Amino acid sequence: MRLRSWVPVVDGSDFPLANLPFGVFRTANDEEARVGVAIGEHILDLDAVHRSGVIRLPSDGHARGSLNRLLAGGLAPVRRRVSELLTDGNEELAALPRRGLVEQGDAELLLPFEVADFVDFYASEHHASNVGRMFRPDDPPLLPNWKHLPVGYHGRSGTVTVSGTDITRPSGQRRGPDGPVFGPTTRLDLELEMGFVTSRPGSLIAPDDAETHLGGAVLVNDWSARDIQAWEYQPLGPFLGKSFATSISPWVVTIEALSPYRIPLAPQDPEPLPHLRQTNPSTYDVSLEVEINGHAVARSNLAHSYWSPAQQLAHATSNGAATRTGDLWATGTLSGPTPDSLGSLLELSWNGTSPIAVGDQNRTFLEDGDHVRLRGWCERDGLPRIGFGICEGTIRAKEQP
Amino acid sequence: MRLRSWVPVVDGSDFPLANLPFGVFRTANDEEARVGVAIGEHILDLDAVHRSGVIRLPSDGHARGSLNRLLAGGLAPVRRRVSELLTDGNEELAALPRRGLVEQGDAELLLPFEVADFVDFYASEHHASNVGRMFRPDDPPLLPNWKHLPVGYHGRSGTVTVSGTDITRPSGQRRGPDGPVFGPTTRLDLELEMGFVTSRPGSLIAPDDAETHLGGAVLVNDWSARDIQAWEYQPLGPFLGKSFATSISPWVVTIEALSPYRIPLAPQDPEPLPHLRQTNPSTYDVSLEVEINGHAVARSNLAHSYWSPAQQLAHATSNGAATRTGDLWATGTLSGPTPDSLGSLLELSWNGTSPIAVGDQNRTFLEDGDHVRLRGWCERDGLPRIGFGICEGTIRAKEQP
Repeated sequence: MRLRSWVPVVDGSDFPLANLPFGVFRTANDEEARVGVAIGEHILDLDAVHRSGVIRLPSDGHARGSLNRLLAGGLAPVRRRVSELLTDGNEELAALPRRGLVEQGDAELLLPFEVADFVDFYASEHHASNVGRMFRPDDPPLLPNWKHLPVGYHGRSGTVTVSGTDITRPSGQRRGPDGPVFGPTTRLDLELEMGFVTSRPGSLIAPDDAETHLGGAVLVNDWSARDIQAWEYQPLGPFLGKSFATSISPWVVTIEALSPYRIPLAPQDPEPLPHLRQTNPSTYDVSLEVEINGHAVARSNLAHSYWSPAQQLAHATSNGAATRTGDLWATGTLSGPTPDSLGSLLELSWNGTSPIAVGDQNRTFLEDGDHVRLRGWCERDGLPRIGFGICEGTIRAKEQP
Repeated sequence: MRLRSWVPVVDGSDFPLANLPFGVFRTANDEEARVGVAIGEHILDLDAVHRSGVIRLPSDGHARGSLNRLLAGGLAPVRRRVSELLTDGNEELAALPRRGLVEQGDAELLLPFEVADFVDFYASEHHASNVGRMFRPDDPPLLPNWKHLPVGYHGRSGTVTVSGTDITRPSGQRRGPDGPVFGPTTRLDLELEMGFVTSRPGSLIAPDDAETHLGGAVLVNDWSARDIQAWEYQPLGPFLGKSFATSISPWVVTIEALSPYRIPLAPQDPEPLPHLRQTNPSTYDVSLEVEINGHAVARSNLAHSYWSPAQQLAHATSNGAATRTGDLWATGTLSGPTPDSLGSLLELSWNGTSPIAVGDQNRTFLEDGDHVRLRGWCERDGLPRIGFGICEGTIRAKEQP
């Protein structure tokens, strides 16, 4: 028997009792940022519940302003207690004003955690192969290291921003006919990704232990200026082509909520070296979708990552590097094998040579005013659907009027 | 007439009254981390001075544990007041226990600021050319973008560590005769660098305004595992070959202390694009030295950076990326034109082919037990010498006994 919440949850909601993702919000009535849990169309205000004494939050309390302290203490026990409180028949919140609930429509969702370090991988074989075919047409599409380790790099953590933040078209240097020129990018792109956040810090983390160091996942759009990136990236990798903004969804969906959707990782060949070997390599069946201006342009899945989240974290700490609570580990662009499953406009328009239809318009790259929305959800027969909410942003022109 | 301090300062000290760098320390008697200013062989305990009411620190006070709040408020006014207090004849500290001073020998120096984002540039033309000659012998040593923009990338801020921290030899994947192998690096290297720290945050920072956003400078050793780096770095840049540790010196030498040593930047050809143009491009005359096991192996200078600190910061924010107080901007390896001015063992041993003498031993790369010490100082006729102190670390074997 599936448990129900006394909070109304419509069919198809991203946030049934089985999900209970964590975020940070504020309201017009109370402008202090505070942590909460999404349920249906509401948010349970954990700060209010903590003050009432009904829940005991770890560390020095309610951790206003970011999830980092809750992440460090572990989201799972808090989520279990919240699940009890919200289950049909529970009356423990009855004495609180509005039972501790805030309508999502009355809340502003904020960046859910302080991002410590931000690492972006490159884990979809389809994406890496497509990029290789475009930029190194005479060579094998994958570089020699790609199937031996999760290729990745550090991004700018200070410009990770919450869904809904406008994205100003960046300027930068790009190749011109007579040498480099500086100006607004002409090839502004999205990247459909997911990211996992560190809960418990560690180092030299074994793959079989790695998920105990992760608190949950968010949607990630790693906005990219392809012309800036192409000119700057040799030999030290992407820098200003990526560093202007990265959007994440406001709700951290916990590892515990995702666990019913665990699926085996697609077979890896060659077998990874021992430091990357998992007893049962696995990932999660998360359906993903990209919309531009309300029109779906791509559908993909987290399962298109060649490397598992656990392998990525194990690799990143295999040199002894320490992690911190709030580290964000993004997958890289999650492209699938079919033309409608490509996670970037670079691939969808094949490097700008083949525009795609967006409603009754065409697009190669993003234009000013374009609105990009990522969605992600898990569904399986016999299980309640859970979702990630949305990760969205609108492109603003470089010069404001 | 040169002002003197009532605190004894020996000739040749790194920390005369003209310097007054800021750091964070603790003592056996008071294990709380607190901010201080170096003077001769002592530290002025700013926390104690603040509590006595003799100095008023910005923001909510003494900012225990890191310099970030002082940086955000501006180090210059605090430094001016400290200079008054420490000048010969001033008696304002007379009532404090030990006049607010702690002997440096009694103090443990801690990481001076919380590193927000860490960017490492690649700004020495000699270094970039040497690396190009080694790894792309059939091509021009500099890539086409190098003289048009300050090439750089984001490093791992969570593993920036203070001088004196042991460096454990990292393991990682490297090329082997029959495919990649995993194990302790066999090509562990140092990198002689300097780094500037963000005081006042900003975005779209103009080159002529950039130094008003920088609080000061430290020495940086960007430890590197060349075999791991060589295998992993295509196409997204260095990752685990660098992310295990970066050491910085404990004292932030302020822009104000450096200003008497300002020198014109060497001419740039071609002229930079407008977003990188400074009215008077300049850097600082900072002498640098690398010692291994007490033997000097290289001498260089900050002036060997092709790009100025201001140009680097202007470039990094030219796409709209925001900076935060505590951002660390490192120069990249500062190699000079001569064989004894190369800032890495990669270059000194020419990719391991030509061992160098270290006392009565030879080295290509670092061995377990090796002790690396960087020094930096400014001197000019008629001015007091000021120094950065030291940035040191000892290599520990992968497996501890």
